[in-house]
Amino acid sequence: MPKQRGKQTSALTSPVTIASSACVAGSKEGRGPLRSNIDSIYEDSMLGLKSWEQAESAMQRDALNLALSKGNIPESALRFVLAGDLLGQCIGSAFSARECDTPFIGLFGACSTITEALGLGALLIDGGFADRLAAITSSHFCGAERQFRMPLEYGGQRPTTAQWTVTGAGAAVLEKAGLRNSAGNPRISHVTFGKVVDMGIKDVSFMGASMAPAAFSTLSAHFEDCGLSPEDYDLIVTGDLGSAGSEILRELFQKNGVTLGERYKDCGMMIFDPHDTDVGAGGSGCGCSAVTLCGHILNGMREKKWRRVLFCGTGALFSPMSAQQGESIPSICHAVRIIGGE
Amino acid sequence: MPKQRGKQTSALTSPVTIASSACVAGSKEGRGPLRSNIDSIYEDSMLGLKSWEQAESAMQRDALNLALSKGNIPESALRFVLAGDLLGQCIGSAFSARECDTPFIGLFGACSTITEALGLGALLIDGGFADRLAAITSSHFCGAERQFRMPLEYGGQRPTTAQWTVTGAGAAVLEKAGLRNSAGNPRISHVTFGKVVDMGIKDVSFMGASMAPAAFSTLSAHFEDCGLSPEDYDLIVTGDLGSAGSEILRELFQKNGVTLGERYKDCGMMIFDPHDTDVGAGGSGCGCSAVTLCGHILNGMREKKWRRVLFCGTGALFSPMSAQQGESIPSICHAVRIIGGE
Repeated sequence: MPKQRGKQTSALTSPVTIASSACVAGSKEGRGPLRSNIDSIYEDSMLGLKSWEQAESAMQRDALNLALSKGNIPESALRFVLAGDLLGQCIGSAFSARECDTPFIGLFGACSTITEALGLGALLIDGGFADRLAAITSSHFCGAERQFRMPLEYGGQRPTTAQWTVTGAGAAVLEKAGLRNSAGNPRISHVTFGKVVDMGIKDVSFMGASMAPAAFSTLSAHFEDCGLSPEDYDLIVTGDLGSAGSEILRELFQKNGVTLGERYKDCGMMIFDPHDTDVGAGGSGCGCSAVTLCGHILNGMREKKWRRVLFCGTGALFSPMSAQQGESIPSICHAVRIIGGE
Repeated sequence: MPKQRGKQTSALTSPVTIASSACVAGSKEGRGPLRSNIDSIYEDSMLGLKSWEQAESAMQRDALNLALSKGNIPESALRFVLAGDLLGQCIGSAFSARECDTPFIGLFGACSTITEALGLGALLIDGGFADRLAAITSSHFCGAERQFRMPLEYGGQRPTTAQWTVTGAGAAVLEKAGLRNSAGNPRISHVTFGKVVDMGIKDVSFMGASMAPAAFSTLSAHFEDCGLSPEDYDLIVTGDLGSAGSEILRELFQKNGVTLGERYKDCGMMIFDPHDTDVGAGGSGCGCSAVTLCGHILNGMREKKWRRVLFCGTGALFSPMSAQQGESIPSICHAVRIIGGE
């Protein structure tokens, strides 16, 4: 079978095993519906450190260390670490990687970064360039507010379409198939990298509207390239379109005669208590999809709850400066097909 | 031969061709010694647009379009665009990629990003996931000053170890070997991804000192993994250590009994007029190594001036916020081995 499927999809020769995964999060996430799948919940959003940025780096390290120890994998067995985050110049990842004696590949895909890391990582393993590597991303509510919005002390009001940046990190260790007994572990079989889509939306309090067309573009390409339809999946998950954005995605498909139905979920709508009115349209941030995937979804796949999952990270590629300059929001979505273990 | 060579190096099954490359730059760079290898020189640092950030995105597009037209390659023949820049949230790349109908993979490696893009791109092609793709990076002096340092109007003094961010962009199109007649074009045969190294340097006006140990780490790993020494290269080039940083790199090797000698150069010391006292220790920024490589070095290889080149992008992975918080500067270096065409 050709590895280049259609215009955008890479088909792996052998599915790459997700050997282990772990996630960590803050107390608000720890009170949400996914709490039983979060490996470590911090009551102190500073993690006892001096800044939110240091805390975010520490969350990345904790998520990686937990994933390694859960999988009984020494850090020295990793060939690469692929990581990224939302902070300017990706300092959450770079400062975490200082403590890691492994070649580091820095990525930026905004909130889609965990999927970019898993996708690239899977291709590097299938290409023969690594037997084992880690994908990590993170975000921190307080660091993101300081950077993208207002000082926390200001107590600004938010429109209902605004989303709440998740404080958390997720890490997954990918492994070459057959390296050891990995029955039961989920596996990545296809990767669809997305194009940058910009429909002219400028409202940074409604990122779901800017990201939904990017998700539509990548999911449509995935279905076409692979000859699949939504019915071929038990679960289709977008990263963080939130309630308003995921409604737009459903409508875009409906207009094309495709019903996503009950199998479609959004991490932004899964991670927080639905009665928590703080969070507006739902969660966002690199940590939102990473925590949901590396905990709830991958654990559910290990428990055979779902067998065929399409995981679609979504990212709004703007910056505080581009927003101040009145630019619209370019967006992206990358998708990985994850299949249940044997 | 194994594709995983030693601890950090990837050896390609078939060298990947650099089918075409182009670079664009500002007027200061256009007055420097590399001017004859710059495809387009802008007299207006705004490129007639409304912001330096828009100008930087336009430079990325121009560099890509020039590389495509020089290689007689339609954009539709690209499978991926790999790109990154120094601006927060990589907006230089994301806004450029809006106009591109090709899947986009966003990277962040600070000034090492062009090497990260070439390295990952080469592995994706050798792994069978693309026949052709583009690697692009950029930086803009005015945008970088606004973001990392002082408003230009302030006219701040700079220490002699400070570097001057290059206004420019470079793009290279990588192609699977044998896809068409590519005799004479340089080829990538090995990629060494680096670890994050932080020796505790906090002076953002002396980034060369923080990056030199990262360059030493990656070059040492490359030589060990491949069983090579500096004598096996006609040219060894670091990205932008500048005069002070490259002197440190020479000393680090000398202490280990290895002489880099005359074959060792640094892009930061090549790009500006050596009598230009503005530029301190030399050029920096993602554009520095990208312009030098995609013009001067690759053209020189096509003219058989050098046959074996080790190109080592170097990056300081700090942010304005991490510097304000008093953090030290994590640094990285990625290296690609480039060999002359047949």
